[in-house]
Amino acid sequence: MRCDVVAVGTELLLGQIVDTNSAWMGERLAAAGIYSLMQTKVGDNQARIVSALRDALAQADAVICCGGLGPTQDDITRESIAELMGVALERDEAMVASVRAMFEDRGRVMPESNQRQADRPVGAEFIVNHRGTAPGLRCLIGDKVLYAVPGVPHEMQAMVDEVIVADLVRRSGESGVIASRVLRTWGAAESAIAEMVAPRLIALDAPGAPPATIAFLASGMEGIKVRITAKATTRDAVNAILDTEEQALRAILGRLVFGVDDDSMEQVVARLLLNAGFTLAVAESLTGGLVSSRLVGVPGASVWFKGAVVSYASEVKFDLLGVANGAVVSADAAIAMAEGVRHRLRADVGLGVTGVAGPDEQEGHPVGTVFVGLALPGQPAEAVELRLPGDRERVRQYAAIGLLDLLRLRLSSN
Amino acid sequence: MRCDVVAVGTELLLGQIVDTNSAWMGERLAAAGIYSLMQTKVGDNQARIVSALRDALAQADAVICCGGLGPTQDDITRESIAELMGVALERDEAMVASVRAMFEDRGRVMPESNQRQADRPVGAEFIVNHRGTAPGLRCLIGDKVLYAVPGVPHEMQAMVDEVIVADLVRRSGESGVIASRVLRTWGAAESAIAEMVAPRLIALDAPGAPPATIAFLASGMEGIKVRITAKATTRDAVNAILDTEEQALRAILGRLVFGVDDDSMEQVVARLLLNAGFTLAVAESLTGGLVSSRLVGVPGASVWFKGAVVSYASEVKFDLLGVANGAVVSADAAIAMAEGVRHRLRADVGLGVTGVAGPDEQEGHPVGTVFVGLALPGQPAEAVELRLPGDRERVRQYAAIGLLDLLRLRLSSN
Repeated sequence: MRCDVVAVGTELLLGQIVDTNSAWMGERLAAAGIYSLMQTKVGDNQARIVSALRDALAQADAVICCGGLGPTQDDITRESIAELMGVALERDEAMVASVRAMFEDRGRVMPESNQRQADRPVGAEFIVNHRGTAPGLRCLIGDKVLYAVPGVPHEMQAMVDEVIVADLVRRSGESGVIASRVLRTWGAAESAIAEMVAPRLIALDAPGAPPATIAFLASGMEGIKVRITAKATTRDAVNAILDTEEQALRAILGRLVFGVDDDSMEQVVARLLLNAGFTLAVAESLTGGLVSSRLVGVPGASVWFKGAVVSYASEVKFDLLGVANGAVVSADAAIAMAEGVRHRLRADVGLGVTGVAGPDEQEGHPVGTVFVGLALPGQPAEAVELRLPGDRERVRQYAAIGLLDLLRLRLSSN
Repeated sequence: MRCDVVAVGTELLLGQIVDTNSAWMGERLAAAGIYSLMQTKVGDNQARIVSALRDALAQADAVICCGGLGPTQDDITRESIAELMGVALERDEAMVASVRAMFEDRGRVMPESNQRQADRPVGAEFIVNHRGTAPGLRCLIGDKVLYAVPGVPHEMQAMVDEVIVADLVRRSGESGVIASRVLRTWGAAESAIAEMVAPRLIALDAPGAPPATIAFLASGMEGIKVRITAKATTRDAVNAILDTEEQALRAILGRLVFGVDDDSMEQVVARLLLNAGFTLAVAESLTGGLVSSRLVGVPGASVWFKGAVVSYASEVKFDLLGVANGAVVSADAAIAMAEGVRHRLRADVGLGVTGVAGPDEQEGHPVGTVFVGLALPGQPAEAVELRLPGDRERVRQYAAIGLLDLLRLRLSSN
């Protein structure tokens, strides 16, 4: 099954918006075993949209057309599909009423231009939009299928996840259910993880093995993702295979696994802090506020997050955090920062990070040398040295995650 | 002149990397008056690359093919272009020597696989790569032209800016030079700026007006960009037009303009602080470290940046910054934070920001209410109230820029 993508919008071609939607769809389709082999961007021009859709349908089994379903005059995806199908547009009065009701639920009056969103090419079906006013479309064209989805990412994503992937899998004639689960890891390179998991890959290749595959995705600051994809006749059977494989991989990868699917490191740390009933304070040097700004991005952070001191200048480390005068790129400094900020902000747990982001070395340490420190209640404080790759920005980002990972490991250490 | 783009790489289709290159090229081409009307992503598959290039060349005057010029076996752009042109690949020994010298300059030995980067289809010319080992290609195919550039963004960008845009403009038969300048603004909506600039747009439309156009780009947290594009017979003449138009726009927009071209708000603030010889400290509440982490991203920040206190919990505001017990979403709190952090971190200038990021209102203030405070040496501290749109993340981002903008306005106020 091949499903290509056509993204519509002049703003995509002018570089005013980067098309992240088709990359997202490509990942979702691949996880379901569907190939996306060409992805095209085209402007708000009916002749070119029709031509792009026609070319895509000639090569692929299915096409997702993304964008151009809004209410304004330059939203012409509906008209383009009608031209491609050789049919008229018809207005669906039930859908008009539904869009109008959506506005009224929000205490607003529907602008008359939104009636256009209830138009559909004769023969096309609507795909319900739970998150916005633009319904999607599903159009059978010969033995192929064309879907139209809005360009607003979360509206598009809901339609792809809830309707389109399942429809494509069903159309592929494979009667089964395909599902994926991603284990999020931190602390080892892709090659090291691949080596650890190799015996499991070989086992899955053997005759009689469960119908599952394992893939690795190096995702930069998000760590290495290990994706299990399984196939079976029912949702329950798929989940059983995923559970078994997750268990097998966790046995191999141990504490490298920090979360599942969309878990972020800061969400995992937040849960651990909530469970322990601890509050947190952070002292940052080279990261300059990155750790703190990731933490406050977690909903409800005010329950457990006290705040941070960004001690970029050495004298702030000495004056405010009580770091001893002298070297500031050291395990001792990281420990003193963690203890100092914990005390200053009256938190249960203190974290400290200091190091060399570059471009120049510092205190004789090469770029990428980072010390992360942790002070937990009733335990001696500790520090760990990290050697991080990359340029200034990457060192800072990796240092931020490395610091949170230290806390994760210690709080989940039972 | 129409120049379409074909981006090559299976990782783009799988969503492991988002294709930002073609968006960047689209913006650069548009600024030079060149239309990019279709942009395609295709995987590392020779038949499909050839087909995508052929289709693109059939519709456009020129095509830029991006990616697949590396040394490994899945880098097959060179082979694909040779097939498309119906010619052989030949190895250029001078280029082999040049790539080898580049490795040796870095104290490394060239892996033999890198010899492939010196291959070119017979009849193609190399485009020199000053920033990496993969040369680009320029291939005349009938009356059209096909460029191949590496997928590494800064290598691709140098080739497009230094060679390809000028070549396209020359080929378009227009003997002139086209150039653009972007004025960066903060503090007014796109519609307000468009209204202010409208008389100038009308003047440029009149007979005998200078050959320049003005466009607006709403760029979210980067503010509204006002782009002037001009055309003349020489580079000097173009620059003269751009200078005149910049002056006219600055007269209209006044202090809304914070910078030019790639200036960021934090770079502008950094220059102003350096000029004044001031050091800076920041107290952040809802922004949670965002301001600080943007500031340390400016090279050389250690000269003028002391650090920050992220006072997320109210008691940190009271204890560490000396904010009076009571309401923390207020002008008084923002002023006390700015004064407190200035004093605590012994900086010349203090900034403070507090407010309601959402999702819930706080102290009776609606989401988006933000107070930014500033303490300068020898002047009474002040605070300004902002009403910011958007969700939690956008409110935090806008608050961070709004805070820096207050400092910019006061430091550049003569």
